[in-house]
Amino acid sequence: MTDQTTDQASSSAVWGLDVGGAHLKAASSRGDARTFSFPLWKQPSQLSERLGALLEDARVDRLVVTMTAELCDCFKDKEEGVATVLDGIAKAFPKVPIKIWHTGGRFVSDAEARANPWGVAASNWLALATWVGKKFPCDAALLVDIGSTTTDLIPLRDGTPVPTGRCDPDRLASGELVYTGVSRTPLCALLSRVELGGVSYRTMAEHFATTLDAYVWLGDLPEAPELTETADGTGATRSFAQRRLARMIGSDPTRFGEDDTTTLAKAARQAQLTLLESAVRQVAEASLPDAVDRVIVSGQGEFLARRLRDRCPRLGRSETISLASRLGENVSQAACAYALAQLALIC
Amino acid sequence: MTDQTTDQASSSAVWGLDVGGAHLKAASSRGDARTFSFPLWKQPSQLSERLGALLEDARVDRLVVTMTAELCDCFKDKEEGVATVLDGIAKAFPKVPIKIWHTGGRFVSDAEARANPWGVAASNWLALATWVGKKFPCDAALLVDIGSTTTDLIPLRDGTPVPTGRCDPDRLASGELVYTGVSRTPLCALLSRVELGGVSYRTMAEHFATTLDAYVWLGDLPEAPELTETADGTGATRSFAQRRLARMIGSDPTRFGEDDTTTLAKAARQAQLTLLESAVRQVAEASLPDAVDRVIVSGQGEFLARRLRDRCPRLGRSETISLASRLGENVSQAACAYALAQLALIC
Repeated sequence: MTDQTTDQASSSAVWGLDVGGAHLKAASSRGDARTFSFPLWKQPSQLSERLGALLEDARVDRLVVTMTAELCDCFKDKEEGVATVLDGIAKAFPKVPIKIWHTGGRFVSDAEARANPWGVAASNWLALATWVGKKFPCDAALLVDIGSTTTDLIPLRDGTPVPTGRCDPDRLASGELVYTGVSRTPLCALLSRVELGGVSYRTMAEHFATTLDAYVWLGDLPEAPELTETADGTGATRSFAQRRLARMIGSDPTRFGEDDTTTLAKAARQAQLTLLESAVRQVAEASLPDAVDRVIVSGQGEFLARRLRDRCPRLGRSETISLASRLGENVSQAACAYALAQLALIC
Repeated sequence: MTDQTTDQASSSAVWGLDVGGAHLKAASSRGDARTFSFPLWKQPSQLSERLGALLEDARVDRLVVTMTAELCDCFKDKEEGVATVLDGIAKAFPKVPIKIWHTGGRFVSDAEARANPWGVAASNWLALATWVGKKFPCDAALLVDIGSTTTDLIPLRDGTPVPTGRCDPDRLASGELVYTGVSRTPLCALLSRVELGGVSYRTMAEHFATTLDAYVWLGDLPEAPELTETADGTGATRSFAQRRLARMIGSDPTRFGEDDTTTLAKAARQAQLTLLESAVRQVAEASLPDAVDRVIVSGQGEFLARRLRDRCPRLGRSETISLASRLGENVSQAACAYALAQLALIC
């Protein structure tokens, strides 16, 4: 209560909203942060209701918005995706002034966003990078934000993001966006073969297991029995993860033991690190050719970002800043939304 | 009517049933063949009803069964999968004698199948290979059956299958099963990068497009507007396929033109052929070290099997037998079920 009273007294309640395809994230400029799992592509019509629930007990005076949900395949193109997300927000918060973050590094109106959907699509990474640059300025830094689905590798110079790509396709080409994360990535996209007990198995190209299973099995991520956004809809426990991992070579836990499970999970982690390493190299060569002073790690996959840092010679001497340590786990999970709310106070 | 009368007069009506995870297929020993799309993993409780509908107008005196559906991730292991499939069949055909095909190359009872689920799991390939060997015997042959989801590469010597693997994991190791097909394979399992206009793009590791989109776009498979078992649930038309393919690099048809679409689709086909080529090499080296006399091609992906044959030096001088040409498209699509019904007459 004290916090809220102070908030109300000192300034208006500004909330950043990050509307993704798998998660809704919100954070206030004061550090109240929330993350809801919501597979928007399955039920886009429920967006406004879920957004309302996300902030039902919060005072919301202003909203600043960023999104990646426009990419969901329930939308025919970015124009339809952006318009649907903005409709959902306006319906949930009919009386609240709303601004949308643009990949040009500024806020635009609802009308401008709809008129230029490519400019506001997938812009959350830039909000985080812009705020991180202001908060932890230095000569040369790399932001490594590893989420459930994607990884952003954003170079910064003198506290300012210097990406070579702004939209998704350009960022996939530059290595600044790698579509791989610590939860939702299908293992069939990482591993076409796996060696177990000296035998090389081709894997099943089916949505049978994801990186979440590998990391829960290995203990990099905690078990979460209530989390059922898994490949087969059963909980994120080690036991169910083993079943899902076994299925990658058409087996089941009656024949696929703990050693096999560990080997497969480690192979997936190794493949993901190799993929990310090559992207770090590409980004650093293009934008940070000299020493990197700082690596800022964030997201659900901070644990992987730290491993990645240790493996990349170019990052070896840099200082590591962890957003989870600085801001707390909760805010770090919704870091883009939090950054956006911070930017709203100064932009 | 004439056919049915003849059938009834001359012999009992034997039906082969191939219960897959994505399709139900049935064929009588007389060549009546049916294929239903049915995503069993989404609604396993509807299996018996759908099986009943598949054969509602047919006389069914005996049923012989093979399955791959036990692998679906709605089942915790093969034991539960096999039992559920057999329960569904028994409920749909309560008065019909049923036998189940075993990977040992023989039929077993319902009780034996349940007691040894690994022996009857994923046995349809052996039914087809056994029948093909009897029908087109020669010194050395390779059966190349490319379906919607998987490819079977089965070596035959003197008219008898000589596989080195019998269960899914062993077959994935031997190259005799390649989990890739011409319809359901996610493109993110085939392409981690694609080069368009001189730029190399990382792809999105998401279920945005499948091989069906590549082959419909390229004209290798016909358009099918009513077929909505696609990545986004819209029809299998060139226009929707373009939208799905564009999404693989985070684009949409406003920026991803026909040339880009063709380049991406061809890259997917190339990746699939490379994968299959390496498996053909492995299978041939292990089991067909000398000349291959015949290549028997079948399944929805016969068109790809022909391309594959032309690319593999080891198959260059062999005679090609097309099951679609010999049996008709309809029976070829349900070739395992048809082969099983044939085997029931002699085994």
